[in-house]
Amino acid sequence: MAVVLGTNQYGKAECHVVRVYRDTARHHIRDLTVSTALRGDFTEAHVDGDQGEVLPTDTQKNTVFAFASERGVGQIEDFALELGEHFVRQTPAATEAKIDVSEHGWDRIDIDGHGHDHSFVRSGQETRTTVVTVRGHGADRQAWVISGLNDLVLAKTTGSEFQGFRTDGYTTLAETDDRVLATSLVARWRYLGTEVDWGKSYSAVRATLLRRFAEVHSKALQQSLYEMGKAVLEQHTDIAEIRFSAPNKHHFLFDLEPFGLENPGEVFHAADRPYGLIDVSVRRDDVTEAESAWHAVPGFC
Amino acid sequence: MAVVLGTNQYGKAECHVVRVYRDTARHHIRDLTVSTALRGDFTEAHVDGDQGEVLPTDTQKNTVFAFASERGVGQIEDFALELGEHFVRQTPAATEAKIDVSEHGWDRIDIDGHGHDHSFVRSGQETRTTVVTVRGHGADRQAWVISGLNDLVLAKTTGSEFQGFRTDGYTTLAETDDRVLATSLVARWRYLGTEVDWGKSYSAVRATLLRRFAEVHSKALQQSLYEMGKAVLEQHTDIAEIRFSAPNKHHFLFDLEPFGLENPGEVFHAADRPYGLIDVSVRRDDVTEAESAWHAVPGFC
Amino acid sequence: MAVVLGTNQYGKAECHVVRVYRDTARHHIRDLTVSTALRGDFTEAHVDGDQGEVLPTDTQKNTVFAFASERGVGQIEDFALELGEHFVRQTPAATEAKIDVSEHGWDRIDIDGHGHDHSFVRSGQETRTTVVTVRGHGADRQAWVISGLNDLVLAKTTGSEFQGFRTDGYTTLAETDDRVLATSLVARWRYLGTEVDWGKSYSAVRATLLRRFAEVHSKALQQSLYEMGKAVLEQHTDIAEIRFSAPNKHHFLFDLEPFGLENPGEVFHAADRPYGLIDVSVRRDDVTEAESAWHAVPGFC
Amino acid sequence: MAVVLGTNQYGKAECHVVRVYRDTARHHIRDLTVSTALRGDFTEAHVDGDQGEVLPTDTQKNTVFAFASERGVGQIEDFALELGEHFVRQTPAATEAKIDVSEHGWDRIDIDGHGHDHSFVRSGQETRTTVVTVRGHGADRQAWVISGLNDLVLAKTTGSEFQGFRTDGYTTLAETDDRVLATSLVARWRYLGTEVDWGKSYSAVRATLLRRFAEVHSKALQQSLYEMGKAVLEQHTDIAEIRFSAPNKHHFLFDLEPFGLENPGEVFHAADRPYGLIDVSVRRDDVTEAESAWHAVPGFC
Repeated sequence: MAVVLGTNQYGKAECHVVRVYRDTARHHIRDLTVSTALRGDFTEAHVDGDQGEVLPTDTQKNTVFAFASERGVGQIEDFALELGEHFVRQTPAATEAKIDVSEHGWDRIDIDGHGHDHSFVRSGQETRTTVVTVRGHGADRQAWVISGLNDLVLAKTTGSEFQGFRTDGYTTLAETDDRVLATSLVARWRYLGTEVDWGKSYSAVRATLLRRFAEVHSKALQQSLYEMGKAVLEQHTDIAEIRFSAPNKHHFLFDLEPFGLENPGEVFHAADRPYGLIDVSVRRDDVTEAESAWHAVPGFC
Repeated sequence: MAVVLGTNQYGKAECHVVRVYRDTARHHIRDLTVSTALRGDFTEAHVDGDQGEVLPTDTQKNTVFAFASERGVGQIEDFALELGEHFVRQTPAATEAKIDVSEHGWDRIDIDGHGHDHSFVRSGQETRTTVVTVRGHGADRQAWVISGLNDLVLAKTTGSEFQGFRTDGYTTLAETDDRVLATSLVARWRYLGTEVDWGKSYSAVRATLLRRFAEVHSKALQQSLYEMGKAVLEQHTDIAEIRFSAPNKHHFLFDLEPFGLENPGEVFHAADRPYGLIDVSVRRDDVTEAESAWHAVPGFC
Repeated sequence: MAVVLGTNQYGKAECHVVRVYRDTARHHIRDLTVSTALRGDFTEAHVDGDQGEVLPTDTQKNTVFAFASERGVGQIEDFALELGEHFVRQTPAATEAKIDVSEHGWDRIDIDGHGHDHSFVRSGQETRTTVVTVRGHGADRQAWVISGLNDLVLAKTTGSEFQGFRTDGYTTLAETDDRVLATSLVARWRYLGTEVDWGKSYSAVRATLLRRFAEVHSKALQQSLYEMGKAVLEQHTDIAEIRFSAPNKHHFLFDLEPFGLENPGEVFHAADRPYGLIDVSVRRDDVTEAESAWHAVPGFC
Repeated sequence: MAVVLGTNQYGKAECHVVRVYRDTARHHIRDLTVSTALRGDFTEAHVDGDQGEVLPTDTQKNTVFAFASERGVGQIEDFALELGEHFVRQTPAATEAKIDVSEHGWDRIDIDGHGHDHSFVRSGQETRTTVVTVRGHGADRQAWVISGLNDLVLAKTTGSEFQGFRTDGYTTLAETDDRVLATSLVARWRYLGTEVDWGKSYSAVRATLLRRFAEVHSKALQQSLYEMGKAVLEQHTDIAEIRFSAPNKHHFLFDLEPFGLENPGEVFHAADRPYGLIDVSVRRDDVTEAESAWHAVPGFC
C-alpha cells in the first residue's frame, strides 16, 4: 500500500471587487465577491514542495481585478467563463478552473421619483450567484454554468399544511392543515450551454420561483420546492436541472392559553435552531449528468 | 470602604415575534425582535439572592407575545411604550423599563403586478428600530422614545473628497478629490414627546437621510453625517437630536499599474477591516438632554 | 423529455443537545450539535405531497434527545452509528441516513489545582466532528465514518517559504524564504471500519496534525497539508483517507519604511479577505473509494 | 433654536496587528485587535468640512502598527496608554483619545511535552481586553483603564436554583431548586490608577471569577455575578468597580415523558434566542465615579 495525493484544488477566495462605470455622469456600480480555484496535476507542489507549476493565488486575485478593468464585468456568467478559460490557458498543469461569483445588488437613491446619478443604496441581503467550471481552452474548452441565488427569504402565512406523515414512538408533532411556512432559499440551476441571455434568464427564473412558492398550496416544503423546480424546467429548455437547499424556518404557535387567550394562527415564535433542512433537485431525464460541476458549488454536491 | 451594588438591569433579549393579521383573506405580517429590561431597586436579588421582587425574564417574554395577541403590534413605538409602562406598573421594585424593538420588513410577492394575499418576501437587511425608556406609570409616567434604523448600506461613486487634513510623521494617506464613499449607517433619533405619527415620521426621516447623503458634496463622512442630521432636525421639530454610528467602508483603488492599466476610479477592493468609525450627534441647543435614555441604546451612550 | 425528481434528502439540522451525567457528585457534561438526514425513495412526498412515508424532522429531533437519555452519548461516532441505523430501520422508504455531530469541549474549572465537580469552562472554539452514513440495517448494515475537527487555528512564525512559483503578466507577489504561515484547519478522515477506539484515535490524529504542522519546513501550505495527511495515514492503518480545507490566512508585512523603521518579519497586518483556500486529500492507493460518504460532509465532496 | 453639533468621535476600528518577537530562536507571538478614537473640538470638520484639525484614521492605523514595532506590545494596558497619550499630544484639537485593545491568545504547539519554538495553536475564543481613555498629556495627563475579558463561557450542572420570584398573570415559569446555569461572560473592571502589574492582576481577577462562579451556590445569575464582583473588589484594592454583561444561556429540560423516559436533570436543549440578559456592576462606595470612561466601552455605559 502507498499513500498518495488525492483530489485537490487551490485558489483565492472572496475577492471583493467593486467596479464603477463612470463614462457619463450617470454612474453604474457592480459589486462582486469572486473566488477562483485551479485543479489539475499539482503533485509536485504537494509532494516535493516544488511550486514551479503553481500560479500563486495572489496572481489569481490580481487577474480578477485586472479583468474587471480590462473587459469590465458584464454578466457574471460571462465574466466567470472568461476568467476560467484564462486560468486554464495560463497554467499548463491546470486541467480545470472553477470561478464562483456572488453579486450584491444596489439601487439608485430615489430623489423625487428619479434615481440619483451616483448615489446608491444596497438592495437587500439576497445575492445572485454563478459557479462556472471550465475544462480546457480554445477549441477544446468545455464549460458548465450553474447559476443561482442565495438567501431569498420567503414566507406564507397560510396555504401550507403538514399532515398524514409517518409516526413512530418518538413522534409528538401534531398534524396541521394551516401553518406558517418560511424559508431562506438557496437555489442553483445548471444550464445546458453557455450561449444564454443570462440576465434575462435569471430574472425569469427568480420570478417563477416566487410565483410558484406563492401559488402552490403546500402539503410540505418538499412539495413546494419540487413544484418550483418543475416550473423552472418547464419554462426554460436551456436549464438541465435545478437544486434547492432550504431550511424550514419553524414558526411555532406561541401558547397563549395560560393567559386565557386564543391563538388562531396569529402569534408565532420564530425559532433559530434546530430547523428542518430540505435538499431537493429536479432534473430533465434526458440530459447528461454533470456531478463534477456540482462539486464546485458550496452546499451542493 | 464597602463594596456595594452599582447600576444593574435585567430582562429578556431577542424575543422573535411574528404577528399575522388574518381577519380577511389579505393577510398582514409583522416581524419583530423585542428585548425588555427592568431597572430599579433589586438589591436583595443580588446581595441576598432573594428573588421576591424579581419578575422573571420568562414572564417578560410571555408578556411580549401576549401583548402581540391582545393589543396587536401597531407602531413599534406604541407597542414598546405600552409594554414598558406595563412592566413598571407590574413590578413595584422597577423604576424604569427599557424596551428595544427591531422590525424586519416584508413585501408581498408580486404576481403580475399585484401583491399576493398571503405570500411574502423579506425586503432587505435594513431594520427599523426603537428603544423606549419608561419611568413611572399612569399620571406619573415619563417616557423617552429613540427611534432609528440599522444597516442602511449607502455608497456614492463620486462627489466625495478627503483632503487638507492634518498630517504627522505617521501619515502616508494621499489627498483625494474623488473617491468612493460607503457606509452601513446606524441612525437613532430622540423624539421630544410621545404623540407622534411614528410611521410617517420614520419614512420622512429615512427619505431625508438618503436625499442628503446623495446631494451633499462630501468633504468627509463627518460632514455628510452632520448635514444629514441637520436636515432631519430642521424638518422635524418634534425630534430633539439624532446620532449616527457609521463605518467608513473603505474602497481602495486597486493598483493596476503593474499590468499597464490605468485605474481612473473604476476598480476598487472593498476591504473589511480595519475601517474608519465615525460617531456624530446633532442636536437642538434649546432642549433638555436625556443621557440616561441613550444608555439603553446599543452602540450609543 | 420529462421533468423528474433528482437527488434529495431531508432532516433536522443543529439540534443542540447537552447531556449531563450526574450519577455521582462528580458530574460530566457533553455538549453536541447533531444534524440528521434521510435519503431514499420519497418521490410521493415531493410529487404528490403525500407524506405517508415521511418521518417528520420533529420526530428525528425527539429521537436525538431521547437517545441521549436512553443510551447516553458515549463516543460521538457510536452515537451517530446507532442513530443512523435506527432511522433506516424505522423508515422503510429511507435507504440511507446521515448523522452529523459536532462536539464542543468543556474543561472543569480549576480550584487550587483540582477540577471542580460540577462547574465547567468552555475549552475553545475547536470542535470534534463526525459524519456517519448508514445504509441498511441489521445484518445488511453498511456504514461509513468520517471523523474530523473544525477550526483548529494554527500559525508558525518562521519555517515557511513560498518561492519558485509560476509567474505571468499579472504576477506581482515577491518570493519569500521566511513568512508567517497561518490557517484555520478543517480536517476530515474516513475510517475503513466501525470497530475503532474513536476517542483514542481522535487524540492521536490531532497530535500528529499539530506535530507535523510544527515540524515540517513548509515550502507551501499544500506541502504542509500533504505531509500532515501522509503522517496520519502512515500511523493509522484503519484510516483510508484524509481531507483538508485550509484557508491561507495571510499575514502581510506592514510597510514601516515611510516611518524610517525596518520590519524584519516582526509586524504583520492579519487580513480577513480575500484569503487563499487550499483543499487537499491524501489517501491509500489500495482502498475502495467512497465518494457518496463524502457528499454528506459540509465543505467536502 | 439652533441646530448644533453634539458629542462626536472618530477613529480606526479593528486594526488586526500580529507582532512577532524573534530575537532568539524561541519566538513569541502577540495577536491584537486595536481600535482608536479621538474626541475634542472637531466642529469645523463637521460643519464646514474643513479637515485641517483632523488626523486621518489612516494615520491612526499606521501609528498602531509603527508603535508595535518601535516600542513593542508589552502589556496591552501600557500599549494603549502610550498610544492614547501620543494621539492627544499629536492632535491639538483632541482633548481625549480612547484606545480599545483585544488580545487573542496563542499556546505553543506541544511536542513530547515541550512547547515548539515557533509553532502555535490558538488557545480559545476568550479574549483579554482593555479600554483606555487618556485626557491631556505630559504632566496634565489623566487616564482611565478598564480591563476585562470577553466570551468566557461558563456552566454549572447543579448548585443553581431559581425560586421565590415574583409572579403575575403572565407567569408560567416553574420554580426549580436544581438547574443548569450557563453564561458567556463579559467582564470589565476599572482600575484606580495606572501603575499596576497588569498581567498579574488580569490572571488573578480571572481566577477569582472562575472560582466564585464555581463555589457560590446560585440563587440567581444576578447573585452569582454580584458575589463574583464582590470577591474581585475585596481582593484587589486597586480596582474601583467591576461590571458584567451576562446572557443567561437557557438550558431547557427536554420533555421525554411522551417516550416513557424520565429526565432527572440529564438531557437539555441549549436554546439560542431569546435569552436572559443580566447587567450588574459592583463598586466601592468611596471612590470617584467615572462614567465618561465607561462611555468608551462597547456594551457598557
